[in-house]
Amino acid sequence: MTLQSAIRVNPIRRTDLAGWSPAAVRQAIRARDWTGTTHGAARGRLQANLVVLPQRYAFDFLRFCLRNPRPCPVIDVTDPGSAEPTRAAPGADLRTDLSSYRIYRNGELVAEVPDLKDVWTADHVGFLLGCSLSFDEALDNAGIPMAHLRDTTSRVATYRSSIPCIPAGPFAGPMVVTMRPVPTAMVVRAVEVTSRYPLAHGSPVHIGDPTQIGITDLSRPEFVKFDGISEGQTPVFWGCGVTPQAVAMAARIPEMFTHSAGHMFVTDLALDGTPMR
Amino acid sequence: MTLQSAIRVNPIRRTDLAGWSPAAVRQAIRARDWTGTTHGAARGRLQANLVVLPQRYAFDFLRFCLRNPRPCPVIDVTDPGSAEPTRAAPGADLRTDLSSYRIYRNGELVAEVPDLKDVWTADHVGFLLGCSLSFDEALDNAGIPMAHLRDTTSRVATYRSSIPCIPAGPFAGPMVVTMRPVPTAMVVRAVEVTSRYPLAHGSPVHIGDPTQIGITDLSRPEFVKFDGISEGQTPVFWGCGVTPQAVAMAARIPEMFTHSAGHMFVTDLALDGTPMR
Repeated sequence: MTLQSAIRVNPIRRTDLAGWSPAAVRQAIRARDWTGTTHGAARGRLQANLVVLPQRYAFDFLRFCLRNPRPCPVIDVTDPGSAEPTRAAPGADLRTDLSSYRIYRNGELVAEVPDLKDVWTADHVGFLLGCSLSFDEALDNAGIPMAHLRDTTSRVATYRSSIPCIPAGPFAGPMVVTMRPVPTAMVVRAVEVTSRYPLAHGSPVHIGDPTQIGITDLSRPEFVKFDGISEGQTPVFWGCGVTPQAVAMAARIPEMFTHSAGHMFVTDLALDGTPMR
Repeated sequence: MTLQSAIRVNPIRRTDLAGWSPAAVRQAIRARDWTGTTHGAARGRLQANLVVLPQRYAFDFLRFCLRNPRPCPVIDVTDPGSAEPTRAAPGADLRTDLSSYRIYRNGELVAEVPDLKDVWTADHVGFLLGCSLSFDEALDNAGIPMAHLRDTTSRVATYRSSIPCIPAGPFAGPMVVTMRPVPTAMVVRAVEVTSRYPLAHGSPVHIGDPTQIGITDLSRPEFVKFDGISEGQTPVFWGCGVTPQAVAMAARIPEMFTHSAGHMFVTDLALDGTPMR
């Protein structure tokens, strides 16, 4: 029995995906054998946010990302019309290799779709941007517990901060940030560990008092949910990959496609962005 | 007596420039009080290659650079028409703040000029790319002697290798590399030191046998000159900032401006690319 027929006979469980190669995960997604989120899949490989824009916005958007590397670390950019991320995953197809996509028009979410085959045209450019899923694993391995990696009801609270992004063309707005409660004695370790993964948002943008970055009530995140913070923990904030989507929505770009929350693109790259053969 | 009038009264010597701020160096260049190369100026600050292209080539060129970060590390990209590198040196002017420029048309060098005031239009985009001048200082400080930092007749030999760049749009071609002779016992140290400066070309692209990267005769570099290599030294090769100019010339882009050899842009950034206030 081949791996493929095994997949069809026995439904894939999330725990199976951890040891799979990125190409095998993408193939299972392309075949619709796996339609869930990619959390925990192909462990040790960099996962990415997807943003797809019409070509006329591509140079402005790329400058925006390069000017704001903490929230928008650039992993790969396709040639106009091509859906192949040649650096991050040669041979992959950004139209089919994520398990769920969102379609925005004029800044409004209009549909959630299983692939982009019918909407991707020769005018589109795909951007793969780092996501923090990748460094959560590194933090957890370093002894800084990431509850959401184990508890499926746990989430990473996400806020609109007052930190301004450096604008480029129509793209402008505040940085969206994630908050992880870190045992106060481990804060330095958290900076050390995440600073090694600039493609997964890198070092924190703020440590401690949330009001200094415009967050008045930690218990009321703008996105996702707040799981609390204990005595002896310090709130640590990192740039978030929701930022580029938020600025593109605010700019009311006529058309944008993205991944659905948690349905990331699994690259062939190591967590630090180096190719693995 | 102000610094400015002092400058005018007493000609600036190269050794004076070492301790100057980047802004002071750029001001002296803008005033034509310093017209020489920037080697040794504002020590500890990142210096950059300049490439200026018409806007319609900008997105292709930026993808080329991002796909080939060893030879083409991106430090900053201007908005179309703007000559201000807002990240690398807010308030600076890429039309006047370098001491010598080259103008290429259809891939041919047609002029060397002291500024770009008459030729820069609303259609131009400026790119600042890392140069190895910055990490030569770090290598020398680490005890790996860089003869060209002390001996004005010494140079870094530069070759066209057989390593293909990843193409983007019309930009394609082999990587141009520099070679530094490194005492064999210090080769690991040379990798360690330069790996910390990805914006100054980062780690080597090859160590040892030049024929493996298509260089048949080390004594005959394609650019600059060869100063010899001693018994007990290993040739170590790094990506070179001449690469993007070479591919743009090969693509016969109708118009391109660059810095003249050695006349770099002095940024406000530290050698590792972080802002310094």
